[in-house]
Amino acid sequence: MSVHLQIEATRGAARAGRLITPHGEVETPVFMPVGTLASVKGVPQDVLEELGVQILLSNTYHLYLRPGVETVRKMGGLHRFMAWDRAILTDSGGFQVFSLTELRKVSEEGVAFRSHLDGSSHFLSPEKAMEIQIGLGADIMMAFDECTEYPADGQRMRNSMELTLRWAERSKKYFEEHKNEVPWAAGRQPLAVSHQGQQVLRSAQDDNFIGHEHEKDQTQALFGIVQGGMDAALRRESAERTIDIGFPGYAIGGLSVGEPRELTRDIVLSTLEHLPADKPRYLMGVGTPEEIAQYAQAGVDMMDCVLPTRAARHGLLFTSEGKVSIKQARYAQDESALDPGCDCRVCQRYSRAYLRHLYAANELLAQVLNTVHNLHYYLATMRTVRSWIRAS
Amino acid sequence: MSVHLQIEATRGAARAGRLITPHGEVETPVFMPVGTLASVKGVPQDVLEELGVQILLSNTYHLYLRPGVETVRKMGGLHRFMAWDRAILTDSGGFQVFSLTELRKVSEEGVAFRSHLDGSSHFLSPEKAMEIQIGLGADIMMAFDECTEYPADGQRMRNSMELTLRWAERSKKYFEEHKNEVPWAAGRQPLAVSHQGQQVLRSAQDDNFIGHEHEKDQTQALFGIVQGGMDAALRRESAERTIDIGFPGYAIGGLSVGEPRELTRDIVLSTLEHLPADKPRYLMGVGTPEEIAQYAQAGVDMMDCVLPTRAARHGLLFTSEGKVSIKQARYAQDESALDPGCDCRVCQRYSRAYLRHLYAANELLAQVLNTVHNLHYYLATMRTVRSWIRAS
Repeated sequence: MSVHLQIEATRGAARAGRLITPHGEVETPVFMPVGTLASVKGVPQDVLEELGVQILLSNTYHLYLRPGVETVRKMGGLHRFMAWDRAILTDSGGFQVFSLTELRKVSEEGVAFRSHLDGSSHFLSPEKAMEIQIGLGADIMMAFDECTEYPADGQRMRNSMELTLRWAERSKKYFEEHKNEVPWAAGRQPLAVSHQGQQVLRSAQDDNFIGHEHEKDQTQALFGIVQGGMDAALRRESAERTIDIGFPGYAIGGLSVGEPRELTRDIVLSTLEHLPADKPRYLMGVGTPEEIAQYAQAGVDMMDCVLPTRAARHGLLFTSEGKVSIKQARYAQDESALDPGCDCRVCQRYSRAYLRHLYAANELLAQVLNTVHNLHYYLATMRTVRSWIRAS
Repeated sequence: MSVHLQIEATRGAARAGRLITPHGEVETPVFMPVGTLASVKGVPQDVLEELGVQILLSNTYHLYLRPGVETVRKMGGLHRFMAWDRAILTDSGGFQVFSLTELRKVSEEGVAFRSHLDGSSHFLSPEKAMEIQIGLGADIMMAFDECTEYPADGQRMRNSMELTLRWAERSKKYFEEHKNEVPWAAGRQPLAVSHQGQQVLRSAQDDNFIGHEHEKDQTQALFGIVQGGMDAALRRESAERTIDIGFPGYAIGGLSVGEPRELTRDIVLSTLEHLPADKPRYLMGVGTPEEIAQYAQAGVDMMDCVLPTRAARHGLLFTSEGKVSIKQARYAQDESALDPGCDCRVCQRYSRAYLRHLYAANELLAQVLNTVHNLHYYLATMRTVRSWIRAS
């Protein structure tokens, strides 16, 4: 199998273990930072490594538009392109296209949409989404699904769920027929273009970048996505029928689309009961630090969210004492660390007064430092949950 | 003396040595990166340390407006405020005010100007510029001067030079009477504000941040500035009369204001002949990599310029093979390093294709990585010149 989960400890519904991927092991439960355009905004890859990031999420829709899948494929896939030799997951593009409310049209075949950048016309189908994701070459790719809008009536939720199931079948079929086309598949690794005899070393630690031990024997993994709107029975049916199709991992999609947080929680908890215990469970696009800790305790293995990185760029920082809006004048002469309980490189060196100044003066460094701190906070939150599970 | 130059080797007119400051030694000739608002845009302080930056320049005018000198003074001065325990130089604000062509009015007393941020009215005089710079607490501060516009006629150049000389006297007088008021002077170090018993450690390597060995016995140094427009005789007179006033270092100001590059060079070379051999010589606001190497070879000890950092943010990169405009489509699938001859962390890890993508997609990381590379290039250029001098 391309990707699989080794469960090493459990505590109640929670599990701690390792997700084995072609590009290294990932300690779970894991929070995956979002690097939309093959970059976590403002943070160099070596800092991500230092923060302990073991898997990143990147967005198919955005990469499809810029730089385009052909460029990434020719560069050997996302890992080589962005000089990141740890694991990567790509979404299917379905959620981003769903967000283009005024610019998309859904049919049985797929979704026609217009680019948010230049209005150009494009079409994504299950097959096309697989083709793109194979070209990007992430370790984990996602089935093409329809994210049901909220609110939606019962018939709409069922129809949408059924469409997602048909698209899951098509996604799997295309993937199985083409998975050997991943840029880093055995015999497919393109020779690096040399430049006057020089060649970029992608990692200071490891100039044998191409070869994780087993990379050549492995392929990507395709995860299925459970939909079904806010109806627990439909969610159960979606889970069971997605499992029937058969994937090495299952995601819960279609949440955080405007519904109350309690409803999100109810749907997550009821859906989790119907997912296989031995496969990774991925809750998409969630949430606050409290939520990711709660969901990990409830048995979710993987989560992603733009919240820590996006909030950082708006000066909203997560700390052990609660949220801090660093733009406030009250911090202008505050010599203390942002979070006295935090051992990240930002809190170890800089004062709130300095961070407040950087933000108020619109300095680039504000976004860099704020992002590093918030990512550290999310990753530390998950480390704490993993320890809690293993301490049982 | 507060700051002094130890000359350790010479080659022709060039000198290599060490500038001894209250915050560490600086190998000269040195290029000083510009951190306008107490930050080199996009680059964390630990990366500056890793790049080998030993002295930064920060701008009095900008810091006076944001966050204001009182904030910096209360935080213990710029070093503590920005968590940088190596040397800092502040300009006098004169050049920035000079740049506000439509917003300033010069009189014998000083310069009335309006903020470029909100149009509010302010007044800078020699005394005020010293008061601000003492509050900022840089190791080296600059006399308040008038930067003569180009072109200017003979009478205008003389009048402007005479004004700068009178302002130099006033600057020195105020400085000598108030230099014990620097925030880090003996007995003046404010107690750090503690936050629930925690306190920010400003340096991962050194939690005894306050105390460089001799900091408490030392004061800031005030450098004089030679003006005189584009007239070699006036420059000579300005140099001689500024030396008569007496400073521990001398700058050549008023260049790179629109004149041809050859004229800049002629004025620099002729002025250098009239500066004392045993004092640091600082050429302000210059230049390209070729120029900083040439001027160092001609006997300049210190230079600063926004070019490497500003150009980086516009995708213009300096390499051993010439300038690279990374936005160009020709680099979209170029797997080679930006500069195959460069050992900076950017060139060691990332490809031109990735840097081009980051720039084209307007990713924050483009500005961060480009700045790191260009600074490395400038600093490496000066390392080469220093080796060349010492190899004589």
